[in-house]
Amino acid sequence: MTDNKNLPIGVFDSGLGGLTVVHAMQAVLPDEDILYLGDNARVPYGTRSPQTVERYAWNCADFLVQRGLKMLVVACNTASAVAVPSLQQRLDIPVLGVIHAGARAALCDPAHRRIGVIGTAGTVGTGAYPREIQALSSEVSVFQNPAPLLVPLVEEGWIEGEVPRLAVQKYLRPLVDARIDVLLLGCTHYPVLESLITAELAALGSCAQVVNSAEAMTIDVIEALNRHELNRTAAAPGKLQCFVTDLPGSFAEVATRFLGTPVGSVVKVDIS
Amino acid sequence: MTDNKNLPIGVFDSGLGGLTVVHAMQAVLPDEDILYLGDNARVPYGTRSPQTVERYAWNCADFLVQRGLKMLVVACNTASAVAVPSLQQRLDIPVLGVIHAGARAALCDPAHRRIGVIGTAGTVGTGAYPREIQALSSEVSVFQNPAPLLVPLVEEGWIEGEVPRLAVQKYLRPLVDARIDVLLLGCTHYPVLESLITAELAALGSCAQVVNSAEAMTIDVIEALNRHELNRTAAAPGKLQCFVTDLPGSFAEVATRFLGTPVGSVVKVDIS
Repeated sequence: MTDNKNLPIGVFDSGLGGLTVVHAMQAVLPDEDILYLGDNARVPYGTRSPQTVERYAWNCADFLVQRGLKMLVVACNTASAVAVPSLQQRLDIPVLGVIHAGARAALCDPAHRRIGVIGTAGTVGTGAYPREIQALSSEVSVFQNPAPLLVPLVEEGWIEGEVPRLAVQKYLRPLVDARIDVLLLGCTHYPVLESLITAELAALGSCAQVVNSAEAMTIDVIEALNRHELNRTAAAPGKLQCFVTDLPGSFAEVATRFLGTPVGSVVKVDIS
Repeated sequence: MTDNKNLPIGVFDSGLGGLTVVHAMQAVLPDEDILYLGDNARVPYGTRSPQTVERYAWNCADFLVQRGLKMLVVACNTASAVAVPSLQQRLDIPVLGVIHAGARAALCDPAHRRIGVIGTAGTVGTGAYPREIQALSSEVSVFQNPAPLLVPLVEEGWIEGEVPRLAVQKYLRPLVDARIDVLLLGCTHYPVLESLITAELAALGSCAQVVNSAEAMTIDVIEALNRHELNRTAAAPGKLQCFVTDLPGSFAEVATRFLGTPVGSVVKVDIS
Protein backbone atom coordinates (compact mmCIF):
# COMPACT_ATOMS: atom_id res chain seq x y z
CA MET A 1 0.00 0.00 0.00
CA THR A 2 3.11 2.25 -0.02
CA ASP A 3 1.93 4.15 -3.10
CA ASN A 4 -1.26 5.12 -1.38
CA LYS A 5 0.23 7.00 1.57
CA ASN A 6 -0.25 10.42 0.02
CA LEU A 7 -3.83 9.88 -1.09
CA PRO A 8 -6.54 11.62 0.94
CA ILE A 9 -8.79 10.11 3.59
CA GLY A 10 -12.43 10.16 2.50
CA VAL A 11 -15.10 11.07 5.05
CA PHE A 12 -18.82 11.10 4.37
CA ASP A 13 -21.95 11.90 6.31
CA SER A 14 -25.61 12.35 5.50
CA GLY A 15 -25.13 16.07 5.99
CA LEU A 16 -22.74 18.42 7.68
CA GLY A 17 -22.58 16.74 11.11
CA GLY A 18 -19.58 14.71 9.97
CA LEU A 19 -17.61 17.96 9.94
CA THR A 20 -17.33 17.45 13.72
CA VAL A 21 -15.26 14.34 12.82
CA VAL A 22 -13.20 16.33 10.29
CA HIS A 23 -12.63 19.02 12.93
CA ALA A 24 -11.35 16.42 15.41
CA MET A 25 -9.15 14.77 12.72
CA GLN A 26 -7.61 18.07 11.65
CA ALA A 27 -6.59 18.78 15.25
CA VAL A 28 -4.49 15.60 15.61
CA LEU A 29 -3.68 14.73 11.98
CA PRO A 30 -2.82 18.15 10.49
CA ASP A 31 -0.76 16.59 7.65
CA GLU A 32 -3.53 14.46 6.17
CA ASP A 33 -5.55 15.48 3.12
CA ILE A 34 -9.28 15.00 3.64
CA LEU A 35 -12.10 14.73 1.09
CA TYR A 36 -15.44 15.34 2.78
CA LEU A 37 -18.80 14.56 1.22
CA GLY A 38 -22.02 15.75 2.90
CA ASP A 39 -25.12 14.28 1.24
CA ASN A 40 -27.23 17.21 2.43
CA ALA A 41 -29.68 16.96 -0.49
CA ARG A 42 -30.91 13.76 1.19
CA VAL A 43 -30.24 14.49 4.86
CA PRO A 44 -31.39 13.13 7.31
CA TYR A 45 -30.65 9.43 6.89
CA GLY A 46 -31.85 8.65 10.43
CA THR A 47 -35.53 8.58 9.53
CA ARG A 48 -35.17 6.44 6.40
CA SER A 49 -35.41 2.68 5.83
CA PRO A 50 -32.21 0.56 5.99
CA GLN A 51 -32.51 -0.27 2.26
CA THR A 52 -32.57 3.43 1.35
CA VAL A 53 -29.70 4.26 3.73
CA GLU A 54 -27.55 1.48 2.27
CA ARG A 55 -28.15 2.74 -1.28
CA TYR A 56 -27.31 6.32 -0.27
CA ALA A 57 -24.15 5.19 1.56
CA TRP A 58 -22.94 3.38 -1.56
CA ASN A 59 -23.61 6.52 -3.66
CA CYS A 60 -21.39 8.46 -1.24
CA ALA A 61 -18.66 5.82 -1.08
CA ASP A 62 -18.55 5.40 -4.88
CA PHE A 63 -18.24 9.15 -5.38
CA LEU A 64 -15.29 9.46 -2.98
CA VAL A 65 -13.52 6.22 -3.97
CA GLN A 66 -13.53 7.28 -7.63
CA ARG A 67 -11.42 10.27 -6.60
CA GLY A 68 -8.72 8.01 -5.11
CA LEU A 69 -8.59 7.35 -1.36
CA LYS A 70 -6.35 5.49 1.04
CA MET A 71 -9.07 5.09 3.66
CA LEU A 72 -12.83 5.67 3.99
CA VAL A 73 -14.44 7.00 7.17
CA VAL A 74 -18.20 6.62 7.54
CA ALA A 75 -18.98 9.53 9.87
CA CYS A 76 -22.76 9.12 9.66
CA ASN A 77 -24.00 6.91 12.48
CA THR A 78 -27.02 5.66 10.54
CA ALA A 79 -24.95 4.79 7.46
CA SER A 80 -22.29 3.26 9.69
CA ALA A 81 -24.89 1.05 11.38
CA VAL A 82 -26.34 -0.13 8.08
CA ALA A 83 -23.63 -0.08 5.41
CA VAL A 84 -20.15 -0.57 6.94
CA PRO A 85 -20.15 -4.40 6.61
CA SER A 86 -20.92 -4.31 2.87
CA LEU A 87 -18.48 -1.41 2.30
CA GLN A 88 -15.71 -3.32 4.12
CA GLN A 89 -16.44 -6.44 2.12
CA ARG A 90 -16.43 -4.83 -1.32
CA LEU A 91 -13.89 -1.98 -1.10
CA ASP A 92 -10.15 -2.69 -1.12
CA ILE A 93 -9.20 0.13 1.28
CA PRO A 94 -9.74 0.24 5.06
CA VAL A 95 -13.29 1.33 5.92
CA LEU A 96 -13.88 2.70 9.42
CA GLY A 97 -17.30 3.36 10.91
CA VAL A 98 -18.20 5.70 13.72
CA ILE A 99 -20.29 3.03 15.47
CA HIS A 100 -17.29 0.77 16.10
CA ALA A 101 -15.19 3.76 17.16
CA GLY A 102 -17.81 4.98 19.62
CA ALA A 103 -18.36 1.50 21.05
CA ARG A 104 -14.63 1.09 21.72
CA ALA A 105 -14.37 4.52 23.31
CA ALA A 106 -17.34 3.86 25.60
CA LEU A 107 -15.51 0.80 26.93
CA CYS A 108 -12.05 2.34 27.33
CA ASP A 109 -12.58 2.68 31.08
CA PRO A 110 -13.02 -0.86 32.47
CA ALA A 111 -15.08 0.60 35.32
CA HIS A 112 -17.85 1.39 32.80
CA ARG A 113 -20.58 -1.19 33.24
CA ARG A 114 -23.77 0.62 32.26
CA ILE A 115 -23.48 2.31 28.87
CA GLY A 116 -26.04 4.88 27.77
CA VAL A 117 -26.43 5.74 24.08
CA ILE A 118 -28.39 8.55 22.43
CA GLY A 119 -28.75 8.77 18.64
CA THR A 120 -31.29 9.30 15.86
CA ALA A 121 -34.32 7.00 15.63
CA GLY A 122 -32.60 5.28 12.70
CA THR A 123 -29.35 4.56 14.55
CA VAL A 124 -31.10 3.42 17.71
CA GLY A 125 -33.55 1.31 15.71
CA THR A 126 -30.76 -0.73 14.09
CA GLY A 127 -29.48 -1.80 17.52
CA ALA A 128 -25.95 -1.36 16.12
CA TYR A 129 -24.44 0.26 19.23
CA PRO A 130 -25.65 -2.41 21.70
CA ARG A 131 -24.53 -5.13 19.27
CA GLU A 132 -21.09 -3.56 18.75
CA ILE A 133 -20.57 -2.79 22.45
CA GLN A 134 -21.62 -6.26 23.59
CA ALA A 135 -19.42 -7.89 20.95
CA LEU A 136 -16.48 -6.06 22.58
CA SER A 137 -17.53 -6.82 26.18
CA SER A 138 -20.14 -9.23 27.43
CA GLU A 139 -20.03 -7.72 30.91
CA VAL A 140 -21.78 -4.44 30.23
CA SER A 141 -25.41 -3.39 29.90
CA VAL A 142 -26.46 -0.93 27.20
CA PHE A 143 -29.38 1.50 27.50
CA GLN A 144 -30.49 3.43 24.41
CA ASN A 145 -32.81 6.36 23.88
CA PRO A 146 -33.50 8.00 20.51
CA ALA A 147 -32.98 11.79 20.65
CA PRO A 148 -33.96 12.89 17.14
CA LEU A 149 -34.92 16.49 17.92
CA LEU A 150 -31.33 17.32 18.83
CA VAL A 151 -30.39 17.25 15.13
CA PRO A 152 -32.77 20.04 14.01
CA LEU A 153 -31.97 21.98 17.20
CA VAL A 154 -28.26 21.98 16.29
CA GLU A 155 -28.98 22.80 12.65
CA GLU A 156 -31.16 25.73 13.73
CA GLY A 157 -28.45 26.94 16.10
CA TRP A 158 -30.73 26.50 19.15
CA ILE A 159 -27.86 25.15 21.22
CA GLU A 160 -28.50 27.00 24.47
CA GLY A 161 -31.58 28.10 26.39
CA GLU A 162 -34.73 26.43 27.63
CA VAL A 163 -35.85 24.54 24.51
CA PRO A 164 -32.66 22.49 23.97
CA ARG A 165 -32.24 22.13 27.76
CA LEU A 166 -35.74 20.64 28.18
CA ALA A 167 -35.32 18.43 25.12
CA VAL A 168 -31.96 17.11 26.40
CA GLN A 169 -33.45 16.60 29.86
CA LYS A 170 -36.37 14.61 28.44
CA TYR A 171 -34.01 12.38 26.44
CA LEU A 172 -31.49 11.86 29.27
CA ARG A 173 -33.89 11.21 32.15
CA PRO A 174 -34.62 7.52 31.35
CA LEU A 175 -30.87 6.88 30.95
CA VAL A 176 -30.07 8.59 34.25
CA ASP A 177 -32.85 6.51 35.85
CA ALA A 178 -31.05 3.44 34.46
CA ARG A 179 -27.93 4.60 36.36
CA ILE A 180 -25.61 4.80 33.33
CA ASP A 181 -21.94 5.50 34.07
CA VAL A 182 -21.05 6.61 30.54
CA LEU A 183 -23.10 8.41 27.90
CA LEU A 184 -22.14 7.86 24.27
CA LEU A 185 -23.16 10.67 21.89
CA GLY A 186 -24.17 8.42 18.99
CA CYS A 187 -24.76 11.13 16.38
CA THR A 188 -22.22 13.48 14.81
CA HIS A 189 -24.48 16.46 15.51
CA TYR A 190 -24.46 15.98 19.26
CA PRO A 191 -20.88 17.13 20.06
CA VAL A 192 -22.13 20.68 19.37
CA LEU A 193 -24.42 20.21 22.41
CA GLU A 194 -21.80 18.46 24.56
CA SER A 195 -21.48 21.13 27.25
CA LEU A 196 -25.25 21.43 27.60
CA ILE A 197 -25.56 17.62 27.81
CA THR A 198 -22.79 17.43 30.44
CA ALA A 199 -24.48 20.15 32.51
CA GLU A 200 -27.88 18.50 32.25
CA LEU A 201 -26.51 15.10 33.31
CA ALA A 202 -25.09 16.79 36.42
CA ALA A 203 -28.40 18.60 37.04
CA LEU A 204 -30.19 15.25 36.92
CA GLY A 205 -27.74 13.92 39.56
CA SER A 206 -25.67 11.72 37.22
CA CYS A 207 -21.87 11.48 37.19
CA ALA A 208 -21.84 9.68 33.83
CA GLN A 209 -18.88 10.47 31.61
CA VAL A 210 -19.71 11.81 28.14
CA VAL A 211 -18.03 10.10 25.17
CA ASN A 212 -17.91 12.16 21.98
CA SER A 213 -18.03 9.90 18.90
CA ALA A 214 -16.21 12.45 16.72
CA GLU A 215 -13.14 12.23 18.96
CA ALA A 216 -13.53 8.45 19.23
CA MET A 217 -13.52 8.21 15.42
CA THR A 218 -10.21 10.08 15.27
CA ILE A 219 -8.54 7.58 17.59
CA ASP A 220 -9.61 4.75 15.27
CA VAL A 221 -8.27 6.65 12.24
CA ILE A 222 -4.86 7.15 13.88
CA GLU A 223 -4.65 3.45 14.76
CA ALA A 224 -5.66 2.35 11.27
CA LEU A 225 -3.13 4.70 9.62
CA ASN A 226 -0.40 3.18 11.78
CA ARG A 227 -1.55 -0.43 11.35
CA HIS A 228 -1.73 -0.17 7.54
CA GLU A 229 1.38 2.06 7.35
CA LEU A 230 -0.63 4.73 5.58
CA ASN A 231 0.57 7.90 7.33
CA ARG A 232 1.18 10.65 4.81
CA THR A 233 4.83 11.26 3.91
CA ALA A 234 4.45 14.47 1.84
CA ALA A 235 5.71 17.53 3.68
CA ALA A 236 2.92 20.02 2.89
CA PRO A 237 0.12 20.68 5.39
CA GLY A 238 -3.03 18.64 4.79
CA LYS A 239 -5.86 20.14 2.74
CA LEU A 240 -9.62 19.78 3.16
CA GLN A 241 -11.85 19.62 0.09
CA CYS A 242 -15.60 19.60 0.71
CA PHE A 243 -18.33 18.27 -1.56
CA VAL A 244 -22.04 18.65 -0.89
CA THR A 245 -25.10 17.45 -2.78
CA ASP A 246 -27.02 20.67 -2.12
CA LEU A 247 -25.93 24.20 -1.39
CA PRO A 248 -28.63 26.07 0.52
CA GLY A 249 -28.23 29.70 1.57
CA SER A 250 -27.62 28.73 5.19
CA PHE A 251 -24.74 26.39 4.26
CA ALA A 252 -21.73 28.44 5.40
CA GLU A 253 -23.35 29.32 8.74
CA VAL A 254 -24.29 25.72 9.58
CA ALA A 255 -20.95 24.32 8.37
CA THR A 256 -19.04 26.80 10.53
CA ARG A 257 -21.09 25.64 13.55
CA PHE A 258 -19.75 22.10 13.04
CA LEU A 259 -16.23 22.78 11.84
CA GLY A 260 -15.49 25.59 14.29
CA THR A 261 -13.80 27.52 11.46
CA PRO A 262 -15.01 28.65 8.00
CA VAL A 263 -15.35 25.67 5.67
CA GLY A 264 -13.42 27.10 2.70
CA SER A 265 -13.99 25.85 -0.85
CA VAL A 266 -17.09 23.71 -1.37
CA VAL A 267 -18.21 22.00 -4.58
CA LYS A 268 -21.82 20.97 -5.22
CA VAL A 269 -22.07 17.55 -6.87
CA ASP A 270 -24.81 15.14 -7.99
CA ILE A 271 -24.25 11.59 -6.74
CA SER A 272 -27.69 9.96 -7.06
CA MET B 1 -62.48 17.97 -20.29
CA THR B 2 -65.68 15.88 -19.90
CA ASP B 3 -63.79 12.60 -20.18
CA ASN B 4 -61.55 13.53 -17.30
CA LYS B 5 -64.21 13.94 -14.58
CA ASN B 6 -63.69 10.49 -13.13
CA LEU B 7 -59.92 10.66 -13.00
CA PRO B 8 -58.31 11.16 -9.59
CA ILE B 9 -56.93 14.37 -8.12
CA GLY B 10 -53.17 14.13 -7.56
CA VAL B 11 -51.70 15.58 -4.38
CA PHE B 12 -48.00 15.65 -3.54
CA ASP B 13 -45.87 16.83 -0.67
CA SER B 14 -42.24 16.49 0.34
CA GLY B 15 -43.35 14.04 3.02
CA LEU B 16 -46.47 13.15 4.91
CA GLY B 17 -47.57 16.65 5.97
CA GLY B 18 -49.69 16.91 2.81
CA LEU B 19 -51.95 14.26 4.33
CA THR B 20 -53.46 17.14 6.37
CA VAL B 21 -54.64 18.48 2.97
CA VAL B 22 -55.95 15.04 1.96
CA HIS B 23 -57.75 14.78 5.31
CA ALA B 24 -59.44 18.16 4.74
CA MET B 25 -60.34 17.23 1.12
CA GLN B 26 -61.87 13.89 2.13
CA ALA B 27 -64.13 15.68 4.63
CA VAL B 28 -65.78 17.90 2.00
CA LEU B 29 -65.17 15.96 -1.24
CA PRO B 30 -65.92 12.36 -0.19
CA ASP B 31 -66.65 11.25 -3.79
CA GLU B 32 -63.27 12.22 -5.26
CA ASP B 33 -60.50 9.70 -5.87
CA ILE B 34 -57.13 10.95 -4.62
CA LEU B 35 -53.61 9.83 -5.52
CA TYR B 36 -51.17 11.01 -2.86
CA LEU B 37 -47.40 11.01 -3.26
CA GLY B 38 -45.16 11.73 -0.27
CA ASP B 39 -41.50 12.13 -1.29
CA ASN B 40 -40.36 11.13 2.18
CA ALA B 41 -37.04 9.70 0.95
CA ARG B 42 -36.03 13.32 0.29
CA VAL B 43 -38.02 15.17 2.96
CA PRO B 44 -37.60 17.98 4.01
CA TYR B 45 -37.64 20.25 0.97
CA GLY B 46 -37.65 23.38 3.15
CA THR B 47 -33.90 23.36 3.77
CA ARG B 48 -32.85 22.73 0.14
CA SER B 49 -31.92 25.10 -2.67
CA PRO B 50 -34.67 26.28 -5.09
CA GLN B 51 -33.01 24.40 -7.98
CA THR B 52 -33.14 21.13 -6.05
CA VAL B 53 -36.73 21.72 -4.92
CA GLU B 54 -37.87 22.42 -8.48
CA ARG B 55 -36.26 19.21 -9.72
CA TYR B 56 -37.87 17.17 -6.94
CA ALA B 57 -41.28 18.78 -7.59
CA TRP B 58 -41.09 17.80 -11.25
CA ASN B 59 -40.18 14.22 -10.27
CA CYS B 60 -43.33 14.12 -8.11
CA ALA B 61 -45.58 15.74 -10.74
CA ASP B 62 -44.32 13.46 -13.54
CA PHE B 63 -44.95 10.37 -11.42
CA LEU B 64 -48.55 11.34 -10.65
CA VAL B 65 -49.42 12.76 -14.09
CA GLN B 66 -48.29 9.51 -15.76
CA ARG B 67 -51.03 7.74 -13.79
CA GLY B 68 -53.75 10.01 -15.24
CA LEU B 69 -55.06 13.00 -13.28
CA LYS B 70 -57.72 15.64 -13.73
CA MET B 71 -56.02 18.11 -11.38
CA LEU B 72 -52.71 18.44 -9.50
CA VAL B 73 -52.48 19.86 -5.98
CA VAL B 74 -49.04 20.94 -4.72
CA ALA B 75 -49.54 20.52 -0.97
CA CYS B 76 -45.88 21.21 -0.11
CA ASN B 77 -45.38 24.90 0.68
CA THR B 78 -41.75 24.92 -0.42
CA ALA B 79 -42.50 23.17 -3.74
CA SER B 80 -45.53 25.40 -4.20
CA ALA B 81 -43.40 28.51 -3.71
CA VAL B 82 -40.77 27.34 -6.19
CA ALA B 83 -42.39 25.11 -8.82
CA VAL B 84 -46.08 25.99 -9.33
CA PRO B 85 -45.46 28.53 -12.14
CA SER B 86 -43.48 26.05 -14.26
CA LEU B 87 -45.94 23.22 -13.49
CA GLN B 88 -48.88 25.42 -14.53
CA GLN B 89 -47.11 26.43 -17.71
CA ARG B 90 -46.14 22.95 -18.87
CA LEU B 91 -48.97 20.68 -17.66
CA ASP B 92 -52.35 20.64 -19.42
CA ILE B 93 -54.43 20.09 -16.25
CA PRO B 94 -55.23 22.64 -13.52
CA VAL B 95 -52.36 22.95 -11.01
CA LEU B 96 -53.19 24.41 -7.60
CA GLY B 97 -50.61 25.43 -5.02
CA VAL B 98 -51.04 25.76 -1.30
CA ILE B 99 -49.34 29.19 -1.26
CA HIS B 100 -52.04 30.81 -3.40
CA ALA B 101 -54.76 29.06 -1.40
CA GLY B 102 -53.32 30.22 1.92
CA ALA B 103 -52.83 33.77 0.69
CA ARG B 104 -56.48 33.99 -0.41
CA ALA B 105 -57.74 32.54 2.87
CA ALA B 106 -55.66 35.00 4.92
CA LEU B 107 -57.41 37.86 3.08
CA CYS B 108 -60.96 36.50 3.22
CA ASP B 109 -61.82 38.86 6.09
CA PRO B 110 -61.39 42.42 4.74
CA ALA B 111 -60.64 43.59 8.29
CA HIS B 112 -57.32 41.73 8.11
CA ARG B 113 -54.58 44.27 7.57
CA ARG B 114 -51.51 42.77 9.25
CA ILE B 115 -50.86 39.22 8.07
CA GLY B 116 -48.44 36.97 9.97
CA VAL B 117 -46.93 33.91 8.27
CA ILE B 118 -44.93 31.05 9.77
CA GLY B 119 -43.32 28.38 7.58
CA THR B 120 -40.08 26.50 6.97
CA ALA B 121 -36.89 28.44 6.29
CA GLY B 122 -37.24 27.44 2.63
CA THR B 123 -40.80 28.73 2.27
CA VAL B 124 -40.09 31.97 4.14
CA GLY B 125 -36.85 32.48 2.23
CA THR B 126 -38.61 32.46 -1.15
CA GLY B 127 -40.85 35.36 -0.07
CA ALA B 128 -43.70 33.60 -1.89
CA TYR B 129 -46.38 34.31 0.73
CA PRO B 130 -45.75 38.09 0.94
CA ARG B 131 -45.59 38.24 -2.87
CA GLU B 132 -48.82 36.29 -3.33
CA ILE B 133 -50.67 38.14 -0.55
CA GLN B 134 -49.62 41.56 -1.80
CA ALA B 135 -50.54 40.65 -5.38
CA LEU B 136 -54.07 40.02 -4.07
CA SER B 137 -54.23 43.13 -1.88
CA SER B 138 -51.90 46.10 -1.82
CA GLU B 139 -53.42 47.36 1.44
CA VAL B 140 -51.99 44.76 3.83
CA SER B 141 -48.64 44.32 5.55
CA VAL B 142 -47.06 40.86 5.81
CA PHE B 143 -44.77 39.72 8.63
CA GLN B 144 -42.96 36.39 8.29
CA ASN B 145 -41.01 34.23 10.72
CA PRO B 146 -39.43 30.88 9.88
CA ALA B 147 -40.48 28.16 12.37
CA PRO B 148 -38.51 25.14 11.15
CA LEU B 149 -38.39 23.20 14.44
CA LEU B 150 -42.16 22.71 14.37
CA VAL B 151 -41.75 20.12 11.59
CA PRO B 152 -39.56 17.68 13.56
CA LEU B 153 -41.65 18.33 16.69
CA VAL B 154 -44.79 17.20 14.83
CA GLU B 155 -42.99 14.24 13.25
CA GLU B 156 -41.75 13.15 16.70
CA GLY B 157 -45.24 13.52 18.14
CA TRP B 158 -44.10 16.22 20.60
CA ILE B 159 -47.30 18.18 20.06
CA GLU B 160 -48.05 19.13 23.64
CA GLY B 161 -46.00 20.07 26.69
CA GLU B 162 -43.25 22.57 27.44
CA VAL B 163 -40.89 21.98 24.51
CA PRO B 164 -43.39 22.64 21.69
CA ARG B 165 -45.02 25.40 23.75
CA LEU B 166 -41.71 27.26 24.22
CA ALA B 167 -40.74 26.73 20.58
CA VAL B 168 -44.13 28.06 19.39
CA GLN B 169 -43.85 30.99 21.80
CA LYS B 170 -40.38 31.87 20.51
CA TYR B 171 -41.58 31.80 16.89
CA LEU B 172 -44.82 33.74 17.52
CA ARG B 173 -43.51 36.50 19.77
CA PRO B 174 -42.05 38.74 17.00
CA LEU B 175 -45.30 38.38 15.04
CA VAL B 176 -47.41 39.25 18.07
CA ASP B 177 -45.10 42.24 18.66
CA ALA B 178 -45.88 43.27 15.06
CA ARG B 179 -49.61 43.26 16.02
CA ILE B 180 -50.74 40.73 13.40
CA ASP B 181 -54.50 40.20 13.12
CA VAL B 182 -54.26 36.89 11.26
CA LEU B 183 -51.68 34.09 11.44
CA LEU B 184 -51.28 31.89 8.38
CA LEU B 185 -49.89 28.41 9.07
CA GLY B 186 -47.65 28.21 6.00
CA CYS B 187 -46.59 24.58 6.33
CA THR B 188 -48.73 21.47 6.05
CA HIS B 189 -47.27 20.11 9.29
CA TYR B 190 -48.51 22.98 11.41
CA PRO B 191 -52.26 22.19 11.50
CA VAL B 192 -51.35 19.34 13.88
CA LEU B 193 -50.20 22.05 16.33
CA GLU B 194 -53.14 24.39 15.64
CA SER B 195 -54.73 24.23 19.10
CA LEU B 196 -51.38 24.81 20.82
CA ILE B 197 -50.63 27.73 18.47
CA THR B 198 -54.07 29.26 19.11
CA ALA B 199 -53.60 28.94 22.87
CA GLU B 200 -50.11 30.44 22.74
CA LEU B 201 -51.28 33.43 20.68
CA ALA B 202 -53.90 34.10 23.36
CA ALA B 203 -51.28 33.68 26.11
CA LEU B 204 -49.12 36.28 24.36
CA GLY B 205 -52.12 38.66 24.36
CA SER B 206 -52.93 38.38 20.64
CA CYS B 207 -56.43 37.97 19.19
CA ALA B 208 -55.06 37.00 15.75
CA GLN B 209 -57.19 34.51 13.84
CA VAL B 210 -55.38 31.31 12.77
CA VAL B 211 -55.70 30.30 9.09
CA ASN B 212 -55.01 26.64 8.36
CA SER B 213 -53.54 26.21 4.87
CA ALA B 214 -54.83 22.62 4.53
CA GLU B 215 -58.43 23.84 4.82
CA ALA B 216 -57.66 26.83 2.58
CA MET B 217 -56.31 24.42 -0.07
CA THR B 218 -59.58 22.49 -0.04
CA ILE B 219 -61.61 25.63 -0.77
CA ASP B 220 -59.44 26.26 -3.85
CA VAL B 221 -59.90 22.65 -4.99
CA ILE B 222 -63.71 22.89 -4.75
CA GLU B 223 -63.72 26.12 -6.75
CA ALA B 224 -61.41 24.71 -9.43
CA LEU B 225 -63.52 21.53 -9.78
CA ASN B 226 -66.61 23.70 -10.32
CA ARG B 227 -64.90 26.17 -12.65
CA HIS B 228 -63.45 23.43 -14.88
CA GLU B 229 -66.59 21.25 -14.57
CA LEU B 230 -64.47 18.41 -13.23
CA ASN B 231 -66.60 17.12 -10.34
CA ARG B 232 -66.68 13.34 -10.33
CA THR B 233 -69.85 11.76 -11.75
CA ALA B 234 -69.21 8.10 -10.81
CA ALA B 235 -71.43 6.93 -7.97
CA ALA B 236 -68.89 5.01 -5.84
CA PRO B 237 -67.24 6.63 -2.80
CA GLY B 238 -63.84 8.16 -3.49
CA LYS B 239 -60.70 6.11 -2.86
CA LEU B 240 -57.31 7.20 -1.56
CA GLN B 241 -54.15 5.60 -2.93
CA CYS B 242 -50.87 6.56 -1.26
CA PHE B 243 -47.39 6.37 -2.72
CA VAL B 244 -44.22 7.08 -0.77
CA THR B 245 -40.57 7.12 -1.78
CA ASP B 246 -39.47 5.53 1.50
CA LEU B 247 -41.22 3.30 3.99
CA PRO B 248 -39.60 3.62 7.42
CA GLY B 249 -40.83 1.64 10.43
CA SER B 250 -42.49 4.71 11.93
CA PHE B 251 -44.53 5.35 8.76
CA ALA B 252 -47.99 4.21 9.87
CA GLU B 253 -47.75 6.07 13.19
CA VAL B 254 -46.67 9.37 11.63
CA ALA B 255 -49.17 9.08 8.75
CA THR B 256 -52.02 8.47 11.19
CA ARG B 257 -51.00 11.65 13.07
CA PHE B 258 -51.59 13.67 9.90
CA LEU B 259 -54.55 11.86 8.38
CA GLY B 260 -56.45 11.36 11.63
CA THR B 261 -57.29 7.80 10.53
CA PRO B 262 -55.14 4.83 9.43
CA VAL B 263 -53.62 5.47 6.01
CA GLY B 264 -54.60 2.16 4.36
CA SER B 265 -52.68 0.75 1.38
CA VAL B 266 -49.34 2.38 0.67
CA VAL B 267 -46.97 1.61 -2.21
CA LYS B 268 -43.27 2.46 -2.10
CA VAL B 269 -42.00 3.85 -5.40
CA ASP B 270 -38.75 5.22 -6.84
CA ILE B 271 -39.23 8.56 -8.61
CA SER B 272 -35.72 10.01 -8.78
